[in-house]
Amino acid sequence: MSKAVVVYSSGMDSTVLLHQAFKLHDDVYVLTFDYGQRHKKEIDIAMSICHPKIKDHKLIDLKFFRDLAPTSALTSDSIDVPRMKDIIGEAQPVSYVNNRNMMFLSIACSYAEAVKASDVYYGAVAVDNLSGYWDCTGEFVESLNNCLSLNRMNRIQIQAPLLYKTKKDIIEMGIELGVQFEHTWTCYEGKKESCGTCSSCAARIAGFKKAGYIDPLLYSTEIDWKDCKEL
Amino acid sequence: MSKAVVVYSSGMDSTVLLHQAFKLHDDVYVLTFDYGQRHKKEIDIAMSICHPKIKDHKLIDLKFFRDLAPTSALTSDSIDVPRMKDIIGEAQPVSYVNNRNMMFLSIACSYAEAVKASDVYYGAVAVDNLSGYWDCTGEFVESLNNCLSLNRMNRIQIQAPLLYKTKKDIIEMGIELGVQFEHTWTCYEGKKESCGTCSSCAARIAGFKKAGYIDPLLYSTEIDWKDCKEL
Repeated sequence: MSKAVVVYSSGMDSTVLLHQAFKLHDDVYVLTFDYGQRHKKEIDIAMSICHPKIKDHKLIDLKFFRDLAPTSALTSDSIDVPRMKDIIGEAQPVSYVNNRNMMFLSIACSYAEAVKASDVYYGAVAVDNLSGYWDCTGEFVESLNNCLSLNRMNRIQIQAPLLYKTKKDIIEMGIELGVQFEHTWTCYEGKKESCGTCSSCAARIAGFKKAGYIDPLLYSTEIDWKDCKEL
Repeated sequence: MSKAVVVYSSGMDSTVLLHQAFKLHDDVYVLTFDYGQRHKKEIDIAMSICHPKIKDHKLIDLKFFRDLAPTSALTSDSIDVPRMKDIIGEAQPVSYVNNRNMMFLSIACSYAEAVKASDVYYGAVAVDNLSGYWDCTGEFVESLNNCLSLNRMNRIQIQAPLLYKTKKDIIEMGIELGVQFEHTWTCYEGKKESCGTCSSCAARIAGFKKAGYIDPLLYSTEIDWKDCKEL
């Protein structure tokens, strides 16, 4: 019996990740974090997911985190979410949330120990690395796995299968795995429709264009899908 | 201006740790965790601490953790807290709480990034290591520090000055630093007086005896303080 824990946010990457875990494991335990994000839409969409392999899905209340990370654009109303072009190559963008990923992973590893799962799935991707997030790198995952391997009883390992994948690769993986992309949420803003211009939307749209498909998600701005086909 | 974050539980070790941080830093930020411990006494005592160097003291609500760690004697009412003699040399005792320490430290490092502190104080001690807690070892701290050193902007490092100290050493350090041991709480049980028999009490009492002092804390069992003097 192979068990896995998946850190899942309703984003496109973590949805593809979740489906990868469905493919490779018998039982899947899902964790979604409420860490005081600016919008709740991401959480509502995440909690609505269902699949026969999901044995449990917990929403973890980390609202205290907004107080600990007031300097991030993702948790503070007073800092604008940056555009993609403004953060590529930066040492650390304002959308970085203080050590959030290590916190998520340590909680997920705790859950994995409780349910006797061997693997924790983590959706770090190559573009996050380029954007300056130190905690979305292969070095970070390897280093944390080195630490986790010191556990004498339960050897949990973090799996980051999207780490060296581009958005295009991930979209192609998702299509192969049967992901319904209209039921994923990527936008940093929490409005009814995705903004289409924040760094997160921009990376998603560029990925769909490179894969040659029209993103089935609704955007509030006009997107030029020339030469792209419907899914 | 030197700043530090201290993970503080009201235990004897973390109180000595806190005073060490007072000695070495200008501003101290304290974190206490409510993770669904069996008793609230530890938290009440922790939150009552005051010192001019404490710039902020946050109680972090991790009550979800009781649900994630139902297999630990420290979070479950149905598992007895073990006696010291039963766990020395064990691979992992039932008082181990799934990856709790990595979670505490990752939150503390997040806080350190927010307040621009360079150091996070962690109260792991040698006896925890002997008792089989993999996350109280020098290897664990070194490994997690390796991971944290990948952060390109804020290089936080975990300081574990008690790591190779015995209880006797820590008591002597505490006396030197002016710690009021009657205002610390060690017992795994949450009663009015300390039980004197759980593994945590037993280690504390043995430490005081080796240091040659009478522990000023009240115990519900008779302790033989022969040849020990009052503080």
